[in-house]
Parts: sequence; C-alpha cells; structure tokens
Amino acid sequence: MPEHVSPRTLGVGMIGYNIGRVHSHAWLNMPLFYHPPPAKPILIGICGRDRERVKNFAEKFGYKRTFTDWVTLIKDPEVDVIDLCTPPNIHADVSVLACESGKHVICEKPLARTAKEAELMLRAAEKAHVKHMTAFNYRFIPAVCYAGKLIQDGFIGRILNFRGAYLNIEIGDLGYLNPDAPLDWHFKSELAGYGAVADLGAHIIDIARFLAGEISSVAAATAVFIKERPLPNAPEKKGAVEVEDAAVAAIKFQNGALGTIETSWMAPGRKDFLRFEVTGSEGSIRFNLERINELEIFSLKDSNATRGFRDVWTTSKAHPFMEKFWVEQGGGFGWDHSFVNEIYHFTDCVVNDKQIEPIGATFFDGYKNCLVMDALIASAKQERWLAVGA
Amino acid sequence: MPEHVSPRTLGVGMIGYNIGRVHSHAWLNMPLFYHPPPAKPILIGICGRDRERVKNFAEKFGYKRTFTDWVTLIKDPEVDVIDLCTPPNIHADVSVLACESGKHVICEKPLARTAKEAELMLRAAEKAHVKHMTAFNYRFIPAVCYAGKLIQDGFIGRILNFRGAYLNIEIGDLGYLNPDAPLDWHFKSELAGYGAVADLGAHIIDIARFLAGEISSVAAATAVFIKERPLPNAPEKKGAVEVEDAAVAAIKFQNGALGTIETSWMAPGRKDFLRFEVTGSEGSIRFNLERINELEIFSLKDSNATRGFRDVWTTSKAHPFMEKFWVEQGGGFGWDHSFVNEIYHFTDCVVNDKQIEPIGATFFDGYKNCLVMDALIASAKQERWLAVGA
Amino acid sequence: MPEHVSPRTLGVGMIGYNIGRVHSHAWLNMPLFYHPPPAKPILIGICGRDRERVKNFAEKFGYKRTFTDWVTLIKDPEVDVIDLCTPPNIHADVSVLACESGKHVICEKPLARTAKEAELMLRAAEKAHVKHMTAFNYRFIPAVCYAGKLIQDGFIGRILNFRGAYLNIEIGDLGYLNPDAPLDWHFKSELAGYGAVADLGAHIIDIARFLAGEISSVAAATAVFIKERPLPNAPEKKGAVEVEDAAVAAIKFQNGALGTIETSWMAPGRKDFLRFEVTGSEGSIRFNLERINELEIFSLKDSNATRGFRDVWTTSKAHPFMEKFWVEQGGGFGWDHSFVNEIYHFTDCVVNDKQIEPIGATFFDGYKNCLVMDALIASAKQERWLAVGA
Amino acid sequence: MPEHVSPRTLGVGMIGYNIGRVHSHAWLNMPLFYHPPPAKPILIGICGRDRERVKNFAEKFGYKRTFTDWVTLIKDPEVDVIDLCTPPNIHADVSVLACESGKHVICEKPLARTAKEAELMLRAAEKAHVKHMTAFNYRFIPAVCYAGKLIQDGFIGRILNFRGAYLNIEIGDLGYLNPDAPLDWHFKSELAGYGAVADLGAHIIDIARFLAGEISSVAAATAVFIKERPLPNAPEKKGAVEVEDAAVAAIKFQNGALGTIETSWMAPGRKDFLRFEVTGSEGSIRFNLERINELEIFSLKDSNATRGFRDVWTTSKAHPFMEKFWVEQGGGFGWDHSFVNEIYHFTDCVVNDKQIEPIGATFFDGYKNCLVMDALIASAKQERWLAVGA
Repeated sequence: MPEHVSPRTLGVGMIGYNIGRVHSHAWLNMPLFYHPPPAKPILIGICGRDRERVKNFAEKFGYKRTFTDWVTLIKDPEVDVIDLCTPPNIHADVSVLACESGKHVICEKPLARTAKEAELMLRAAEKAHVKHMTAFNYRFIPAVCYAGKLIQDGFIGRILNFRGAYLNIEIGDLGYLNPDAPLDWHFKSELAGYGAVADLGAHIIDIARFLAGEISSVAAATAVFIKERPLPNAPEKKGAVEVEDAAVAAIKFQNGALGTIETSWMAPGRKDFLRFEVTGSEGSIRFNLERINELEIFSLKDSNATRGFRDVWTTSKAHPFMEKFWVEQGGGFGWDHSFVNEIYHFTDCVVNDKQIEPIGATFFDGYKNCLVMDALIASAKQERWLAVGA
Repeated sequence: MPEHVSPRTLGVGMIGYNIGRVHSHAWLNMPLFYHPPPAKPILIGICGRDRERVKNFAEKFGYKRTFTDWVTLIKDPEVDVIDLCTPPNIHADVSVLACESGKHVICEKPLARTAKEAELMLRAAEKAHVKHMTAFNYRFIPAVCYAGKLIQDGFIGRILNFRGAYLNIEIGDLGYLNPDAPLDWHFKSELAGYGAVADLGAHIIDIARFLAGEISSVAAATAVFIKERPLPNAPEKKGAVEVEDAAVAAIKFQNGALGTIETSWMAPGRKDFLRFEVTGSEGSIRFNLERINELEIFSLKDSNATRGFRDVWTTSKAHPFMEKFWVEQGGGFGWDHSFVNEIYHFTDCVVNDKQIEPIGATFFDGYKNCLVMDALIASAKQERWLAVGA
Repeated sequence: MPEHVSPRTLGVGMIGYNIGRVHSHAWLNMPLFYHPPPAKPILIGICGRDRERVKNFAEKFGYKRTFTDWVTLIKDPEVDVIDLCTPPNIHADVSVLACESGKHVICEKPLARTAKEAELMLRAAEKAHVKHMTAFNYRFIPAVCYAGKLIQDGFIGRILNFRGAYLNIEIGDLGYLNPDAPLDWHFKSELAGYGAVADLGAHIIDIARFLAGEISSVAAATAVFIKERPLPNAPEKKGAVEVEDAAVAAIKFQNGALGTIETSWMAPGRKDFLRFEVTGSEGSIRFNLERINELEIFSLKDSNATRGFRDVWTTSKAHPFMEKFWVEQGGGFGWDHSFVNEIYHFTDCVVNDKQIEPIGATFFDGYKNCLVMDALIASAKQERWLAVGA
Repeated sequence: MPEHVSPRTLGVGMIGYNIGRVHSHAWLNMPLFYHPPPAKPILIGICGRDRERVKNFAEKFGYKRTFTDWVTLIKDPEVDVIDLCTPPNIHADVSVLACESGKHVICEKPLARTAKEAELMLRAAEKAHVKHMTAFNYRFIPAVCYAGKLIQDGFIGRILNFRGAYLNIEIGDLGYLNPDAPLDWHFKSELAGYGAVADLGAHIIDIARFLAGEISSVAAATAVFIKERPLPNAPEKKGAVEVEDAAVAAIKFQNGALGTIETSWMAPGRKDFLRFEVTGSEGSIRFNLERINELEIFSLKDSNATRGFRDVWTTSKAHPFMEKFWVEQGGGFGWDHSFVNEIYHFTDCVVNDKQIEPIGATFFDGYKNCLVMDALIASAKQERWLAVGA
C-alpha cells in the first residue's frame, strides 16, 4: 500500500467521464451511506481527452485537478487508487502502469478487449500486490449478493441450470434500433473489443460465474441487425458496424449444469433487463434488475400445498450491505446504490487489506470473463462448441 | 372422406388412455362450447393394451366399444377419425395404417421418434388425402394464436429473437427429481424417442416455428441428472435412463433471427412453464402458459412516455376462437380448453374440408418438428452447430 | 329426500337460461371431472319465458322437456333439484314452492332482492328439510377454498383486516360505461334488487364472511355514474337507472377486524377483478380471480431474510377438490371449473346427505349476505355506520 | 426573501434527526443530481434535544453548527430555510416563528397534529410571504408526478374512483406487531396527533387530493390491535397506546367520485406498500411504491384486442424530473431519490421565486390534509359520514 495512505483518506484518480459520472457520484456518497467510512475519499484528479469536458466534470464533482494525460494522473503522488472508466481499448496500458506505480485499480467492465490483454493486467496487478477489482457492480445489489449466499448455503441443492439474459434498448427513444444512431466507439472492435457481448453480456457472464461456477464450454451465435451507421463526424457518410448487436449461447458449467446466455441492445420493451434464474435440485432463485429490490426464491422443502416462489424484499437489515447501510430502505434501493456499495467494498478492502473476492470481482474474474467472451465469439464464427480458455 | 361421414356425426376411434383422457374430454365438450358443432362426435372405440383399464375408460367417457388391437379399431367402419394418444413408438405404424384405411388422423406430439418415421407418416397421409394433424394444442390457446396474428400483421416488425422454454416438475411432489420415480416409458429411447426434448421441448419448438418461422440450425447440450432409476416391475433393481432430463440450445432462424430453446422436467418452482418472448424491431410479445389468459405486448409506436408491456386479457370476443366460444370467459380460460378448441378446429377441417394449417399443425409441421429435435440431439452429441434437416 | 332419488341419478330442473348456460355445462361435465360421480345428473327440464329460446337451450344441452311455467317444472316428478338461475325478483316465489314440493334447491346469487325475502326462502328450506345452496361459485375455486383452510388452521394468526373488491367492465367493448347500453333488468330495482352491489358485490361479501367471519357494521357510499339509459324495446326513449353503478364501504367484523369492500361495473382495465387480501397478526393471504390458479401467502414465521409472498399454484393434488379432479391441471384451471366443483359438491351433499356448509354457502349464508347488502345500501342513504341486521 | 440569499447558496437549518437524516442526504446530493443546482445548499445548523446525537449528526453530514434550542437556530442569520423534521407536536411553534423570522420552511408530514394547528402555520407563512412546503415526498416520484399529468391531460376521462392504501410493517423483524415494541412517541397523541393515520395515512390522503381532487366527506373506522406497550425508559411497566394502529375509510370526492383509503402499520408482507388506483371513465392508472419505477396505465382507446394495463417504466427523459436528472436510470430509481427531487423543487422555488404547487404540497395542502385526518378520526368516533372541514 502506498505509504501516505492513512486510514482516513483515499486519493482517487478517475480516468474517463461517462460511467465515470456514476463512479464519482458513488465516491461522494459512500461516506454518507456508510458512516464512518473505511476512509474518506478525496477526489484528486480526473483525466479525459477533451479539456473542456474534463473541466466541467471536475467542477461538478469537486475534483482538485484535471488531466488530459493519464500517465501524469497515475504518477500524481496524492492518487492512491485509479478508477478506470474509459472504453476497453486503453484498459491494459493504463492499468499496467497504474499497478507498476503501486496504485490500486478499479477498472470498468469488460476488463479488456481480449483475455490476452486481461491476462497482462492480472499479472501486473498480482506482481505489484495492489488491490485490483473489475467493476461488476451488480454483484453489489443486495438481492444478487444474497442469491450467492443462498446458493453457497445449499438452498437450491445441486445446480442444474443457469439462465441469464441482459437485454435493453439503449438510451433515448429507439436506442440502437434507430438506424441513424451514429457509429460511436461501441461499434468499433478496436475500441470496444466486442459489441453487446462486451457492453451487456459481460455482466451476465460474471453473474453466471458468481452464482453457478466456472463455464466450461459455449456454443453461440451472433447477429448484426444494422450493418452500417452514420459516421459521428460526417453523418452523410456511413461506416461498417464491426461488432455484434446480439448474441445467444448455450453453455455448460464445470459442475455439470447447463445454461443459456443472451444479450442484445435491441430489445424493445426491455429497459434494463438483467435477468437470471438458477435452478437446482432442491429449489430455484430468480432475479430481474428491473425489480432490483426483489429476489424470488423457491424451495422444494416447503410443503407441496404451500410452496411457491417467494417474492423476498431484500433490503432489510438481514440482507447483504444493509446492516451498515445508512437507512433501512422501505421504499427501495435504486440502481446507483449498487455503485455506492461497490465503492464501499473496494475502499474497505484497500484500506483494511481485505480480499476483494468472493463478494467482488478481481482482475482474475475479469480475465475469466474475457475468456468466456472470447470463446463465445469464436464459437459463433467456428460454428461449434468451444471450451473456455482453450 | 369416408362415405358415411354425414355433416352431423363423426366417429372417433381413440388409441391410448393417458393424454387420451384429455382428448376424450375435449370430444365430449366440443359440442357444448361450439354450438352447433361442425359435427357431433360419436365415441366409437377406445383401444389400449390393458383390457380392464380400457373397459373403465370406455365406461367413464361413453365409448361404444373397446379394443386391445389397434388394427381392428382402425378397420371399424364407424370410425372416421383416429385420435392417436399412445407413446411415440407406435405412432408411425398406427398412423400409416389409419391413413391407408382412409381415416383422418390426429396424432399426439411428438409426431414420431425421429424425422424419418415422421416422414413416412406424412407421405401416407398425403397419399391418402385424409386430414392429418399433430396435436400441438398450445396453438389453440387464444393468446398464442393471437400472438401469431399480431406477428403476421407486423406488430413487432422484423423478428430479431425468439426465446422459448418449457420447464416443469412432473406430476407429484418431486416429479422426476425424485430418484425413486420408476423407469417408465419416458426414460426409454425406444418408446419415447427423446426425453424432455420430446415430452416438453417439442411444444416450444412448434411454437418457435409457428411464431418466428423455420429454424435453420441449432447448437445444443443435454444432460441426464439422474442416471439410473428403479425398474417399474422390479423396484429393487435399477435400469439406465436412456434420454435427456434437460436440454439447452442456441438456434438460428432462416429469417436471420437468433434464439434459445430450453427444456427440463426438473425445474423446481415451474408448474407448467411454457414461456416465450418474440422480440422484433418494432415491438415484443411474451407469454407464459402459467398465466394462460394473458398476452404481453409492447410496441415502440406507443409514445416514449406511455409505452410499456401491455398485459392483454385475451378472452374477449375480439380474440381467436372466442367469437364462437360458448361464453365470454371473464374469469378466464383453463388448460383443458385448449384441447376443446383443437378438437373443434380438427372437426371443422374434417367435416368442412378446410385446411388444418396455418392455425393447426399438420404432419408436415410434426415432421419439421422432428427434424429440429433430431438436429438438437445430434448437435449435443457432435458438439457443433448443425443445420436442421441436414 | 324425495323417494325416487336413487344413488345413481339426479333429476335437474333448470329455471333461467343466462347463467343457466354455465350451470348446465357444469351438470354435464361434473361426471367427467369427478368419476364416478355421486350421482349421474339427468337434465329433465328447462324453464324460461321465451318458448323459442327455451327450445334452443334444451336442444343444446340435452334437456328432456321445456317449460314456460315454473310451477309445472317444479311439480315434475322426475325433477329432484331445482337450479334457479333467474334474476332475483322471482327467487323467493320459486324457491319457496320448490322447497314445499320437497325439491332441493341451488339458487343463484344474490339469494333475493332483500334479506326479508331471503329469510322466507331460508325458513321454507329448513322446514322442508331439503338441501339448499346459494351458488357462490367462487368458494369452489381451489385457491379460495384453500385460503379458508389456511386461515382456519391459524396460518395468518388473528385476523386484522379484510380488503375485497369485485370490479369489472361488463361484457362487450365498453360494457356499462357505454351510455347506449340499454336499460335491462340489471338497472331496475324491482328485478335486480340492487345494482353492482347485487351483481358483483354479493360475491365479495360472501368471501369476506367465508374467510374473515361475520360483518358487524358497514359505512358505505354508492354512485350512479350514468343516470339514464335507452329503453330496451324503444331505444329512442330513455328511462332512469334505479340502482348503483358502484359502491365503496368501510366495514367492521365481529372479531374486531376492519375492512373495505368495493364494487363497480365501470372499472376500465378490470376484466374480472375479484380481489381479496386478508391480513393477520402472523401473515397475509391474497388472491385475484384474474389469476385463478394462484394464491399468494405470507408468513412472519419464515425468516426475516427469506420471507416474501409465496405465489402458490393451487392445483396440485394437495389442494381442495383436486384430489378427485379428473386430471392434475399443470396448465391451470379456468373460470367454468368453479361451477363444476360447485355442482359436484351440491350433488354429493344431496345424494349422500352431507352438509353444504362450511365449504358451500347455504340459504343461511345467502340470507346473511342480503343483510349485509341491505345495510350497505341503507348506510349510504342514511350517511352513517349501520349494524348489519339491525 | 432574506437579503443575503444569493443565487448561489442557500443556508439550511435542520431541526430533528430521524427523517432529518434523509433530508440531509438529499440536500447534499441535490447538486450532484441537478447540476448546476438552483443554489448550492450550505448546511448551517442542526438542532436536536440530545447534544451528543446532534454532534454526531453534524459530523456525519457536515453541518457547521449544532443547536439544542430551535429558537437560536431559527435566528441564525446564515439560515435561509428551516427544514423541520421533528415529531408533529412542535411543528406549529417552530414553523410560526420561522415564518415570522422570514425563513422559508419545509415541514415534514403531517403538517400538524390537527387542522387547527396547521391553519396557524398556513396563516403565518402566508403573512410572511415565505415559501412553505409540506414534505409529501412521494409527489416527487416520477411515476406519481406523471400520473398527475396524465389525469390532468384527460387520459382516464372523468374520475370515478380512487383506491389508496399505505400499509407496512415498521422497521425490524416484527415492527409494531411485536407487543414488546416500546411505547415511543408514535403512540402518544400529544406528540404524534394520530397514529398510523398520521404516520402513513397522511401520504395516501395527499396523493388522493393530488390525483383525484378534494375529498368532501369520509366514513371511517379505526382499531388499536395492541392496547398497551412497555414504557421506553421502564420496560417493566406498560402504558396505554393512545392512537390507532389501523384505519379504513370510505370517501367521497367533490367531483362525485367514490373511494377508499386504508392504512396500517401492522401489515405482514407489506414492506412499504403505498398503492393507489385511479379509475376513470376512459382508463385507469395504478401504482405501488414497492415498484417505484413502474406506472401501470390502461386506456379504453386502445383497441379491444390489444388493450391491457401497460407497465410503463417512468425514468426515461420523457418523464417528470428526469430531464434534468443526473443520469438516465436504466436500472431504476430508489426511494431516497424522491427526497432529492423534493429538495431540488423546494430550492428552485425558493431561489427563483416559483410556485411550490401544484407539483409540490404547500402548507395549504398540509392544512387540507389535516382536515381530512381530523374528519376521518372524528367519523370513526361518531360512527357516521362527516363532511371534511365541517
């Protein structure tokens, strides 16, 4: 741990200002939700390419300094942790330097464009003995975390099946279904790695691993439904979409369970549909992000006449994170609170040298996540079942 | 059409008394629900292997004669239609003879153990110019039929994805999750063809074809979760389960849509979960058999502020079958009514020489259904994507 | 019991052909659903005012004889039970004569236009020692019957609150919200007694009594939203609506519980919304007729982390009526099956001299039901709390 | 407006630290969610009776000064607005002095113990020409606010019925159903005014007025289910519960609509069940706080075959507050965000001299709210319908 880290403050260096907004908000709120916090975050610097946007961002959230060069930010001696919120293309470079500079790193998902890149990041982090976290924030929803605990405790017996989907229709009226939506970085493989699989699918793959164990092999198909889009800076011209709009996959787990994974950013009616159902020999558990406070659990141990899915409201003090949460959330917990819990956990692990896993995802999890994505995309191309990591 | 068929009566010969109960009930109820009926069904004969059970069955439902030999039943001159409700192993033999004898045939699903058998049945039926129907009764639920109409009418635009599952936990407290459940015919490939794929999966495959078009290729995995079971007649001994307990598949449609299909008869919490969601470029439609009267439809044409899945109650007079149905079903329609509608449609087609398709499934549909099942099982074995019918 | 009642047949005399269709259907289906039946119903006669409609009705359902005079039907020696399906205005006259003639009576709800009339019917039935039943068919839904059993068994502890509503929008596109819907008998107090309170409210009042005990007092308001309607036989003229379109009531139970009851036949979006929730000191139970197969139950005895409303599917063999029901209803039970169960219970009680209550409702229950309706309507007029039966 | 209010800062004086936690959190978050904010809130002082708790509270949220005497806080020249979060007993005294001192006031609900007290507050506020707001935060949920807009725009036609309930089981395992829960201020009429009616019912009454207009008369019943509780400081002794645990009411609106209102803090299974349904002649709207992001809307203008309740996700940019909200909430909005919106609106009105109403509730609304509560409680005692304000 860098010498100057006191138990009382933690210097944050943020890179990227899109999902970075949500992370910044979480850093500011964490000490209110968890009081006293493990450490008080100090927002040291924000780095982005556009000087004006960086400046506005800094003013809004209260960052002390602004940067357009991430090397300088990383080297800033007041920065203890790098919060990496850029598109995937620079994750590896930034992260490796940050680790080598002794900074802890929390990195947005997907960890990298490929497992190969992710592996570099994992090795650098392990070598540097810093804390490393892949920001799979949905693990920090009480319902999801509690699902993990129930499964761990044997509530559903032996796992037989995992069904997962993450579907939405992106921001705005028609989202990416609008053929006039411009060819932004999400559609470029060099920047994004993959398409819906990286943007949305990474989350549901992480939850599959979190709840049902390692995926051993996959058979997938992908589709590009809109093949060309207007160029952002020259809308009268069109460029080719390089990544998938949707993917489906049959999967097998190491433990013998089967499953399916689906993702699409062209799903009318689905606002933010991250859905899973884990079926076991003695019960089942299901969840939908659109109803974030509810976990549905079924047990064959209830009598035949009284059993049914129980719609459990997961924000009582008996549920994960809620013991220390600022207030019992009668009326419910929102999407952004998952980031607050995530930042709390990361801070707690950094300051008190606790393990990120198994509650949080490390770079190892991010790396395994990339292996699954790589296998999924390759399987679709090769039209066969592929072992993950093969 | 056999000469003695008057517009007023239709002689029914039933073979098999398990799902045969439900069909018999439907034959008796059809004239009450649809009055006047296209023809009054006369229950001529019931055929089964156990003389005592056949006799009881005949008494309960009012069959005039009993048979233990299906050839004799088929040859009975009063029999106009054969209703074939046995396990799949004798579907082909019975059906071919029935067709050759000039009898119309309605045959339970799956149409046969393999597409090869099904093809024989299809050819015999076409050659004999009789009406032939595969008893995919769920097409006759108003909500399902109406989903087909909406898609046909362009309500959801271009089809992008089909997600289907048919999951349950079979009859009784634990169903087939109970390791002491005996090794009945469902677990023997010679009798059943396939396992959960034939028992449940055939239905969801049919609905996939009905709503989203022909499936071009599949990539599947199957699992046997309980590998041995007690022999029915010697429970102290165990025999090998020969068929799958569950299957998952990624699928591609000829029209470019993707999809997934799942089936399991070991799904705690799922009573009779036949679920589908069809996603299109302009809307989505979803359905769950457990809420048989409701169809959920979403349209991007509704304004951004007022759009959401509409929970449509599909039993008004504006919905399929309900115009002629005996009574407007305020409180809702049950599972067995789907069979009544099915028998009505079959009778109407036989008596008035109408087409079974596209509302009902013919032997052609049953054959295509078998092709998909064959491909699915072969794909799981070969661990690769397989073209359907290849 | 009339002498000629054998254990094997029961002669049915039906009066009225509207809801009489549903009862006739149930008489015909009962022996199929419950085999062997307590007795085989023989449809002896149907009586109505319109000779042509009576004739068609008899043909459709197979009644042996037709009547336009109910006295003659009652006197028919083959008739063992009178099934009384007319509007309320002649319930008392018909029922009293039927009882005096030694016929068992099942009478549609509301039992009468007023409690005073109902009391005459109750006395006549008790004096004649015949079986008497008020046809509150919703008691015969497995979920509702099972709710009663759970409450009886103490599942929810001490009852604190009952909330009930029965709302719909009557048959057709706009139902009674259509100002052009004619002034039929439902709107005439001499024929119907009350309006929505009698048509729909009677059901929810019965369920309140069935589940939560006797209602001691009520405070109500009623409204007529459309005050005049076209005359049925002279649509160019309008007549006054004499009964309420909607009512709301606060209620108190003898056991100290509170409650509310609402009814309206002008509720857009509500197809057949009979909804109740019974709250107790240790749990709660809720039901919605629009999801007839589901009962939601909550117990404080489940642990704080795992408790939630359980969505119980109530058609397993462990639930009321389903033990003897013809087939386990995986895919669910429909509205008309409640009538089949009702007719089964009535037949069983008549033939085997069992008690109608507490599962079914007797004329005593029908009378108490009328007392609540009378108090409700009077309370609305007098603008004060009124004791029931005062 | 006090002279020193610049467009850039607003000095906040908080009194009370229970719901005061949630308000403080909202003051701190408002500038993050709405950037740039109408003014930057400066947390000047917190006042409470317990010096130690006040100090901790100040430290947690960053208040500059602490007070145990509210007069001194009010007089603090840096304080522009008083945020009044105490039990109702001192609302009138504090609020009148604050107004007379030229401070804007936001006061928690219920506005006062009685309408008489509330009237004093309203007159003081009007006389002082300060902004005054009753903190009915649920108006600031996008779904609720949007319901108001739809009704205003005629989406449901003429209002026929309003059904509202606010039910929960208070914090902890059994909440107030636990007979050992101590006799805190909620159970003392001098401190709380009323019981569940003031704590929960005030909210649903406010929503009734907000959506369906003025309530003209009520007929209610109340119940005390646990009559004695342990004294907080001497648990071996018990004291009498002075307020109701639950209430039910039938209501009439000035516009001719009917309705019901219920409230209870002893509702097993109900976490935070604020539920309403507004039925009109052309549609219906319903909402449940437990699913805060969803508004269900039904329109008779949709065709008979395609109409159903639409489950609208109300956090798109097309919905109230969301245009300026910090991020489009795909995954949803939580309970505490309603307070952020409320504080934003209050700040905007104070700083830019806008009207609190009709989006927010003024002291006039708080006063009318108290009139309804007074009538409700009096109606229960007098056992008759009572006009509101009579």
